[in-house]
Amino acid sequence: MSKEYLISVKEVTKIILENFENFGVEKVNFQNTLHRVLKEPIVADRDFPPFNRVSMDGIAIDFDQFPGQKSFTIEGVQAAGSPQLSLQNKKNCIETMTGAILPKGTNAVIPYELIIIKNDVATINTSEIKYFQNIHKQAKDRKKKNLILTKNTLISSADIGVIATVGKHEVTVAKQPKVMIISTGDELVDVNKTPLNYQIRRSNVYTLVSLLENLNIQAATIHIADDKIALKKIIKDLLNNYDVLLFSGAVSKGKFDFIPEILDKLEVKKIFHKVSQRPGKPFWFGKKDKKTIFAFPGNPVSTYVSCLRYFYPWYKKSVGLDYKNNNYAVLDQDYTFKPNLTCFLQVKLTNREGKIYATPLIGHGSGDLANLADVDGFLEIPKGKNLFLKGEVFNYLPFRQTL
Amino acid sequence: MSKEYLISVKEVTKIILENFENFGVEKVNFQNTLHRVLKEPIVADRDFPPFNRVSMDGIAIDFDQFPGQKSFTIEGVQAAGSPQLSLQNKKNCIETMTGAILPKGTNAVIPYELIIIKNDVATINTSEIKYFQNIHKQAKDRKKKNLILTKNTLISSADIGVIATVGKHEVTVAKQPKVMIISTGDELVDVNKTPLNYQIRRSNVYTLVSLLENLNIQAATIHIADDKIALKKIIKDLLNNYDVLLFSGAVSKGKFDFIPEILDKLEVKKIFHKVSQRPGKPFWFGKKDKKTIFAFPGNPVSTYVSCLRYFYPWYKKSVGLDYKNNNYAVLDQDYTFKPNLTCFLQVKLTNREGKIYATPLIGHGSGDLANLADVDGFLEIPKGKNLFLKGEVFNYLPFRQTL
Repeated sequence: MSKEYLISVKEVTKIILENFENFGVEKVNFQNTLHRVLKEPIVADRDFPPFNRVSMDGIAIDFDQFPGQKSFTIEGVQAAGSPQLSLQNKKNCIETMTGAILPKGTNAVIPYELIIIKNDVATINTSEIKYFQNIHKQAKDRKKKNLILTKNTLISSADIGVIATVGKHEVTVAKQPKVMIISTGDELVDVNKTPLNYQIRRSNVYTLVSLLENLNIQAATIHIADDKIALKKIIKDLLNNYDVLLFSGAVSKGKFDFIPEILDKLEVKKIFHKVSQRPGKPFWFGKKDKKTIFAFPGNPVSTYVSCLRYFYPWYKKSVGLDYKNNNYAVLDQDYTFKPNLTCFLQVKLTNREGKIYATPLIGHGSGDLANLADVDGFLEIPKGKNLFLKGEVFNYLPFRQTL
Repeated sequence: MSKEYLISVKEVTKIILENFENFGVEKVNFQNTLHRVLKEPIVADRDFPPFNRVSMDGIAIDFDQFPGQKSFTIEGVQAAGSPQLSLQNKKNCIETMTGAILPKGTNAVIPYELIIIKNDVATINTSEIKYFQNIHKQAKDRKKKNLILTKNTLISSADIGVIATVGKHEVTVAKQPKVMIISTGDELVDVNKTPLNYQIRRSNVYTLVSLLENLNIQAATIHIADDKIALKKIIKDLLNNYDVLLFSGAVSKGKFDFIPEILDKLEVKKIFHKVSQRPGKPFWFGKKDKKTIFAFPGNPVSTYVSCLRYFYPWYKKSVGLDYKNNNYAVLDQDYTFKPNLTCFLQVKLTNREGKIYATPLIGHGSGDLANLADVDGFLEIPKGKNLFLKGEVFNYLPFRQTL
């Protein structure tokens, strides 16, 4: 019997982040960049607004005529998208539409709500007008060449609008890693099959595919039987063709847990194996040159939380995103956890008056994927004590879309 | 000059939700259901676990032999995915792997960490063993026919694993609405064109496409010139072929704001026009039979916030999701807002000790899309007072991915 060495969650986090990789960049049509990582600064190609832009429908006048003069003959109509008109007579006005360039010789816009038009004469029905009112002044938002989006921005729907506005139809973004997700284990059958009484269906690979879909990564999957020769041959190929291999299972002490041994034979360097956490203790991590291997424990909840807790920040750092977990929640009831391990506690999250509360909802162990259907994330409770009190604040890992 | 009637945000919300639609359901391969809305209950097709499942690598024994007996001859190996073995001699043991079916005649698993194996005899190195330890008991998580996922669940990555586990390779989900996003306005040019000095690039349609991408809706787009005849003809066609039309612009008082008039001629029923909010006042909403028309104001920020605030909950209610906004944040500094309108305030969001703080970051008006690049969402400040104090709690509308 040997006392096993478990590396701490904190240390593992540090190591994983040190082992980030750069997958390069690629040019993509701007319409396909939502949730991609920007790899070039986006600057204003012109002033914004690019001209003194009318921001109300109404009339444009020469401010100096007011308040002495209240009635203005309409000289013409300045439509949005039409070349700039010039006011011919300072005593007249031009009808102007939202989005139009302000006519030359005018410097105040009075909205239709405050005028009466009769026989092509507009009469102003207010005594208060301000110089340049209802005009969005050229360059007020951004000057030409101003930085609008910085490199390493995770592109949001609002950013897509900005990118379109400055005419960046091709955008440099981070390339996504090529990821292969590998299941092993002779107990697994396909989803469309009926398992025998000692078999179960393959599910972890699909969970992992979905978790990566959240990051906009399209991963491939493969199943390999528990056969050392086949495993070695196939994994060798995969190491040549993918940036990242994600395994689920076969990393513990079982007689058919071949993965660590085979990776070793293929000269993948083990960086660590076994983390002081529950669930997910037998997590194995290694590198071969620029290739990165995450071998998660096979229990569904272990695989799930390990991917969220380790692969996500590793990926984020690799593509240049903020990888720090800034999500904090307040434990909503006392919780006791005996083992000296970091605990990833399944919780329901509730926002009450702006505060995020985490209510534990305990499953039946790391094999109980069904419990996750009822929770929103994992509260990360550090090792070192056993009793955690209502009101204490911890990091959490969310896994549901909130938009 | 006419005093215009503005409908309240509260009333608009109520009306929009009353006007939800049902787009039906469709069967989809389970691998394509992430972030879709489940439209059938998912039940356990068998017990979970389906058998007494070994949860540690080690040996399985007959508990009654212990503690009298400490050493057990190994009779065989029960691998995961192999048919169930039977213990032939109660004094012996069987090596068992995680995930395997528990051998007949055994009822406790002792992990490798607590035994020493020598010459095919395993000697137990602990005095404490519990009946059925390290066995994930059949049906402990879910019994056959138990409900696991309810109808109307927004399918998460964890749910994908559950669906795979129960063998639901085809899943009934809500059909997505067919949406057409329409821009008008002669001032707009394509993103890959260089605008003349009085023109700007088309951007709102792309922002809207991205906002709908967040909901997994693939929308189509079209640009129509400010020409009444063309507009009427094309919109008539679109009404026949789409569930939803989203317009951006041409809904205010301008001479070329034809949309309300044309929709009226096409017998689209106006439900309301103009909301007491800033930005986004001229928002127009109508129905023609089962077709729904959102005509948003053309200013980029107006379009953006209106889509988040009205289209999103309308869509959620239509497909059966919870549409209530449960996001609350604490205003982080005093804020004064004079107009008697609901204010959608641009804010930066920060989680400090589990509390969500909203810090205003004021842009230069509803034309200033670039400001959104620096904020995370909109705080919804109700009308009726002018001074909002640090510490007050309001709803917010997030628009960034948080995973």
